[in-house]
Amino acid sequence: MDVADLSPAQARERFRAGERVPTAGWCRGWAQANLIAVPKRLRYELLLFAHRNPQACPLLDVGEPGAWSTKLFSGDLRTDLPGYRLYRDGEAVADLGEVTGEWREDLVPFLIGCSFTFERALLAAGVPVRHLEARTNVPMYVTGVPCRSTGSLSGPLVVSMRPVPGELVETAVEVSGRYPMVHGAPVHVGDPSAIGIGDLARPDYGDPVEVRAGEVPVFWACGVTPQAAVLASGVEYAIGHLPGHMAIMDARDDDYRVG
Amino acid sequence: MDVADLSPAQARERFRAGERVPTAGWCRGWAQANLIAVPKRLRYELLLFAHRNPQACPLLDVGEPGAWSTKLFSGDLRTDLPGYRLYRDGEAVADLGEVTGEWREDLVPFLIGCSFTFERALLAAGVPVRHLEARTNVPMYVTGVPCRSTGSLSGPLVVSMRPVPGELVETAVEVSGRYPMVHGAPVHVGDPSAIGIGDLARPDYGDPVEVRAGEVPVFWACGVTPQAAVLASGVEYAIGHLPGHMAIMDARDDDYRVG
Repeated sequence: MDVADLSPAQARERFRAGERVPTAGWCRGWAQANLIAVPKRLRYELLLFAHRNPQACPLLDVGEPGAWSTKLFSGDLRTDLPGYRLYRDGEAVADLGEVTGEWREDLVPFLIGCSFTFERALLAAGVPVRHLEARTNVPMYVTGVPCRSTGSLSGPLVVSMRPVPGELVETAVEVSGRYPMVHGAPVHVGDPSAIGIGDLARPDYGDPVEVRAGEVPVFWACGVTPQAAVLASGVEYAIGHLPGHMAIMDARDDDYRVG
Repeated sequence: MDVADLSPAQARERFRAGERVPTAGWCRGWAQANLIAVPKRLRYELLLFAHRNPQACPLLDVGEPGAWSTKLFSGDLRTDLPGYRLYRDGEAVADLGEVTGEWREDLVPFLIGCSFTFERALLAAGVPVRHLEARTNVPMYVTGVPCRSTGSLSGPLVVSMRPVPGELVETAVEVSGRYPMVHGAPVHVGDPSAIGIGDLARPDYGDPVEVRAGEVPVFWACGVTPQAAVLASGVEYAIGHLPGHMAIMDARDDDYRVG
């Protein structure tokens, strides 16, 4: 069965069984989300950080302290993603396939919209998506653009990049703009150096993709941004998803479409 | 000088000097906001409540504990609104002209979008606004529709009502829908009893307005909703604005227009 045809429950089962793979193109029609779980003492700060940086951190759902499922994610957040990253004192200390033993009782899970959610709409509008064609992970970059900080959380904006043929940029902006809860319209079109990205061939997360003649790099705010804030702010303990290895939600792409 | 022509600073000065009046129609072009200030221990709950009920509680800004100004409100939140309501243990205990003595050090102020912000756009589109014509406060009603609750905050949706000529309802929906951060499109059009409102002539807050032949009552989510949650949830201490007596923000109406 093509992974695009799997249900969220079927995909989660495969990840629980050990499959570790980026989720772009999986479960056609179902929304995907970024995970960031932080200690309860930071939950207000993180919620406020999300509110202050809505394009990077559109919040789909929040769990109770210690909970491993939420209203919109009926699976087990500790095992049902294809990859996790563990943070201690502002450093990424391990990439793991499951985090049952690491899921402390005071961790509060936040699920944040992912731009994979509008890729089906891009394709439907005739906009090619290179990392889907290449079956690789989307390239992601830490920019030089600072997020709006809170008392204890600050950090740079992270973006994903898709090369778009010049004549289709307007369409890509318009189509993704209809999905504000999964990052919406691009934050930048064109020159990577304008947002502090040095080399497109060397993404900070995910895999590089070819930018062909006549194509323009288009940058969308990315839900890995809270993980960059965890790093930059020296947060004592946090669990994120492995970038590109998302939570498959019990919500449809179209639930986040506006207009 | 017509109150529509005042700057936010000029309006605040009049309120600080003691003027107590609803703010519909004041400071043309400037956004208005609802105030709810709660003890620090409830700030996460209130932020989550706002996230879970975005149409009623679109959050424009949040202050630090004890602060009386915020990024988008440079005045003094304790004196520069034309009216306040004080709550203790889930009861409204006083309506006050200023709350300097009541502004405890652990109070966290939240500023929530107000539908007055899109009334200029309604007028520009040819949709009459009855309470502006009558120079009264907008009528507001506690509905039978429950908000999505959090651990300790729950309560009913509060709505504002404007009578709209039948042939202009679609325009009113479309125009207000462009302002999602100040309640956006209506939550209900037509039958008040469908959302648990008994008698339009007896609003829970504000003043009644005439609904003329050929007009349809149109209901928008209202930022008094958090005050209804404070009441319903027995919150120990809170300060809100007097309904209709809003904070005039340092942000423009158009900042909240989409598309």
